[in-house]
Amino acid sequence: EASVHVTDLGLLRGYAIFDYLLTRSGQPMFLDDYLSRLLRSAELLRLKLPFDRQELRRQVVELVQANDMEEGGIRFLVTGGPSPDGYTPATAPTVLILAHPMPRFDPQAYEQGVKLLLYEYRRDIPEVKTTNYIIGIHQLPRLQAAGASEVLYHDGTHIFETTRSNFFVVKKDGTIVTPEQGVLKGITRKNVIRLAQEEYPVELRPLAIEELHDATEAFVTSTIKRVAPVVQVDDIVIGAGRPGPVAARLREKLIALEQQYIAEAAPSS
Amino acid sequence: EASVHVTDLGLLRGYAIFDYLLTRSGQPMFLDDYLSRLLRSAELLRLKLPFDRQELRRQVVELVQANDMEEGGIRFLVTGGPSPDGYTPATAPTVLILAHPMPRFDPQAYEQGVKLLLYEYRRDIPEVKTTNYIIGIHQLPRLQAAGASEVLYHDGTHIFETTRSNFFVVKKDGTIVTPEQGVLKGITRKNVIRLAQEEYPVELRPLAIEELHDATEAFVTSTIKRVAPVVQVDDIVIGAGRPGPVAARLREKLIALEQQYIAEAAPSS
Repeated sequence: EASVHVTDLGLLRGYAIFDYLLTRSGQPMFLDDYLSRLLRSAELLRLKLPFDRQELRRQVVELVQANDMEEGGIRFLVTGGPSPDGYTPATAPTVLILAHPMPRFDPQAYEQGVKLLLYEYRRDIPEVKTTNYIIGIHQLPRLQAAGASEVLYHDGTHIFETTRSNFFVVKKDGTIVTPEQGVLKGITRKNVIRLAQEEYPVELRPLAIEELHDATEAFVTSTIKRVAPVVQVDDIVIGAGRPGPVAARLREKLIALEQQYIAEAAPSS
Repeated sequence: EASVHVTDLGLLRGYAIFDYLLTRSGQPMFLDDYLSRLLRSAELLRLKLPFDRQELRRQVVELVQANDMEEGGIRFLVTGGPSPDGYTPATAPTVLILAHPMPRFDPQAYEQGVKLLLYEYRRDIPEVKTTNYIIGIHQLPRLQAAGASEVLYHDGTHIFETTRSNFFVVKKDGTIVTPEQGVLKGITRKNVIRLAQEEYPVELRPLAIEELHDATEAFVTSTIKRVAPVVQVDDIVIGAGRPGPVAARLREKLIALEQQYIAEAAPSS
């Protein structure tokens, strides 16, 4: 079982990035998008990966085959490495690629929708997928008490993202809006934006908290959740307080895109 | 050599606290103050320590004796523990108590003073000593290029603290000012405040960035640095741009306090 030395800056100083994707039907889904983000995160934190994209891709394929991994999660973890002084990054980062069982996401969320709680916070270096989840985890008891699933970060005026998802609203005129700045650029976000643009006007722009009041729908996107409807944020009931048709349509389109990806990735036989 | 499992939330999610003290002449310095802060950090992050204060004290004394540790560093590290889903804290945290060699702090800093660079940031849950040092470490290349030692966090109006120190200024009228809110309550800060109050007026209050312009001195305090004079912040030269007498006097008083602590802690023979 993999372990990391206690002098590792990922542990001592939270100086680490990660990324996480799923395999479906034995295919690492949208692997190149995830690798691009991992490489970008590493570059922004000056973590010099000893592997290039092609080698990382090869190692993932090998891991999937070695574990006979039809459905599951793959995590990349890159840390500042063992540090001689417990603070300054080492020359060589620690790189781990881990196989996990398929995470469970309660399908009731699609039927009933989820609740979010507002929380004033912005992630450090938000475009980098760092391992810093202190705020989100610290809020878990408050979420559980409120029957809510995540906190929705904002700066008092504008909404950013939730702890582990991107956030979208649907306006009365049918326009879909999602923040572009101060958020992690989710791979599912990217796919959903592209799929949405085929059928709806889509705006990537600052999203004011007050826009929740006249939204007809809201939803979150993430690798694990795909597209999950949001029916309440704090005391603000979104639209009719029920999952709406846009989120359902985009989830359907995303699943179709996944099936297309699997079909194209599978070796022809 | 100690290691931590990769499913540990301290590594995967940066959900961890630590504390760090020094031994001098075989004595763990101000141990009860450090234990109080560790216990408070653990309580605020809901990390249920399996040891009480007395047991932690006993383990430190044992570690110091086993390592024949005249001079060195002792680190407590408490993480969310191995998590079944990679996110939710386990019932039992991981607790490590580690012995380190004595860290080196360049004595030239006391002769020449250090430079700081302003950076707009506030630590998450600042009263808790979490392992999140992403911002400070990320700024290392900029610091090195500027010949500066640390970033000084502020919110655009007020100063908080540096990455690893508390910050003080001396005003023209001789008053010493240090921020009370939005900062880690350093043990050295606490000792220095108490020693300063014997000779100077001391104010614990919000410290405006513009107050740097009419400060006669500035200094940082930390376990490793004790009291280190600050001679420049960005382009602002503090006072005469040289280490001043107040910082030197407080460092002298702190060393005397340490000697007194060692003398009182040593078993009479």
